[in-house]
Amino acid sequence: MSPMNAQWRLAARPVGLPKQSDWEYVEEPASEPSDGQFSVELAYLSLDPAMRGWMNEVRSYVPPVGIGEVMRAGGIGRVVQSSHPDYAAGDLVSGVFGVQRYAISDGTGVTLVDTTMAPAPVHLGVLGMTGLTAYFGLLDIGRPESGQTVVVSGAAGAVGSVAGQIARIKGCRVVGIAGGPEKCEWLTEELGFDGAVDYKAGDVRAQLREHTPDGVDVYFDNVGGEILDEVLRRLARGARVVICGAISQYTAEQPPKGPANYMQLLVMRASMTGFLVFDFARRYREGIAQLAEWLQSGKLVSREDVVKGGLEEFPEVFLMLFRGENTGKLILQLTEDAL
Amino acid sequence: MSPMNAQWRLAARPVGLPKQSDWEYVEEPASEPSDGQFSVELAYLSLDPAMRGWMNEVRSYVPPVGIGEVMRAGGIGRVVQSSHPDYAAGDLVSGVFGVQRYAISDGTGVTLVDTTMAPAPVHLGVLGMTGLTAYFGLLDIGRPESGQTVVVSGAAGAVGSVAGQIARIKGCRVVGIAGGPEKCEWLTEELGFDGAVDYKAGDVRAQLREHTPDGVDVYFDNVGGEILDEVLRRLARGARVVICGAISQYTAEQPPKGPANYMQLLVMRASMTGFLVFDFARRYREGIAQLAEWLQSGKLVSREDVVKGGLEEFPEVFLMLFRGENTGKLILQLTEDAL
Repeated sequence: MSPMNAQWRLAARPVGLPKQSDWEYVEEPASEPSDGQFSVELAYLSLDPAMRGWMNEVRSYVPPVGIGEVMRAGGIGRVVQSSHPDYAAGDLVSGVFGVQRYAISDGTGVTLVDTTMAPAPVHLGVLGMTGLTAYFGLLDIGRPESGQTVVVSGAAGAVGSVAGQIARIKGCRVVGIAGGPEKCEWLTEELGFDGAVDYKAGDVRAQLREHTPDGVDVYFDNVGGEILDEVLRRLARGARVVICGAISQYTAEQPPKGPANYMQLLVMRASMTGFLVFDFARRYREGIAQLAEWLQSGKLVSREDVVKGGLEEFPEVFLMLFRGENTGKLILQLTEDAL
Repeated sequence: MSPMNAQWRLAARPVGLPKQSDWEYVEEPASEPSDGQFSVELAYLSLDPAMRGWMNEVRSYVPPVGIGEVMRAGGIGRVVQSSHPDYAAGDLVSGVFGVQRYAISDGTGVTLVDTTMAPAPVHLGVLGMTGLTAYFGLLDIGRPESGQTVVVSGAAGAVGSVAGQIARIKGCRVVGIAGGPEKCEWLTEELGFDGAVDYKAGDVRAQLREHTPDGVDVYFDNVGGEILDEVLRRLARGARVVICGAISQYTAEQPPKGPANYMQLLVMRASMTGFLVFDFARRYREGIAQLAEWLQSGKLVSREDVVKGGLEEFPEVFLMLFRGENTGKLILQLTEDAL
């Protein structure tokens, strides 16, 4: 007899922060894998700001999650039953399995997780899409050079904390923008950032000026909004602005605010470039190998904010991202014991 | 005895469109050139949207024009008196001589004008900074490939009309955005654009969709504002947005409006890059040679909107730019006869 599955399905297109009524919690027997498929019992869900974008009916890089569909999310789980030649019961796998207890997969986009290298949650963080996003976004799009000033917003978040550390490893002067003294202290004391701007402490402009006396050569932006505008005022000549995200705008109830100071791109002969980690798929192996080496040598600190909550609590835990309540990679742990 | 000079000096920092009281008209005897200098009697003034930016007290790529200083402007004139080894009385020269009848120069940034190649006004247009701006901005920053779709705003203006024609020469599908049926007809009938969007006719979104069925690979932007936002919605994957100007914002009395749809840069893995023609100074010779060849072979059409008005009319003629009243390069002719 099949175990009971539980799913969070999208019930309505949210306006602003997703409300409880935008979701539907459904329990039904788990499906059995057909030929060429396997079933997975999820242990960890990756909670990412990008998920909010997938809930909107707009042109984007992936189709929106349909009303009535299981919410899309990355995760790690254990194969429970397999009719797929490459996966066996007991394998630990990572993939886009959705916000549910049991998933069926044909192996598309699935990778095996090696916990001898690092605990499972790290494979959703530094050694997963999070780390790869920081790696390719910073190095390939931002192209920082040793001695240059790199500013990262959302710096205490999953991607930002890795991007800033990579910039530091590459010999840059790194300034993080984060909310609150604890996060800022974590950046400078634990992660080795050269400076931190606490946007909740006010006067971001003055703080930025103090920390970037020679201007900003690379800005890795996760937040958009007013902070993006303030950093544009500080661009150095030839600066590169990397657009990784815009979390300040994802739950805005008004139309998004564009960067009013974008003409600084002309004044400073600078560029603003968007990217998606998926375009670097052929180089994931290279990225993971380098990130793993930095992690093992202690150059790179990994931090996961693992919430042991059970699937029921997904809607509430998801909101932590938009309230700035997580430090490092936000993960919802569904199992009693860590893997 | 020195002839009388006349100058337009900046009297106040304008808000929005410059008013008469933002200027001061001053007549006084012309200065005599010292050693290493020469004096020029101006014949043509180049009127450019960028001049409006130079009137603001903001961080930019050149210092603002100071209150009480002669307004900065490019121009062409005849050397009248010279104590400079490289210039003799009678030489026709192009340079940043300011909005005045007589200028003193030490030769910095000055070039000789060869009217056997083309009449003098063309040397302020296609064969001057205007043409070079279009050439390097489109080719080096936009990097259009044959068969791609290039959209140009301010397409009937000085730089836009050249940028669009270069794109056409390079085998692109070219769509211009301009105001009014005459300008649009000029683009498609005279300049060989594949399509034209009349922003004054309304529903820019629908017009753009019709003319760019495969999206926009290169957008050469001279206007900013809502039109930039509409084109961002049409970007093709890997698109390049070239920021050449933002004339819709230069005379805005509110703070400038940023491109609200800038996150399409991420969705489409696109870039938005600002540039200044001055950075290509070492390649001006290459650019002029190519532009002259296209001009002489008839591939490139040059159009100057020469207003014979006298220096007194400068403030009024300058406003034509912001009212969209010029087609092609706007030039104020100060002399009775054309050169």
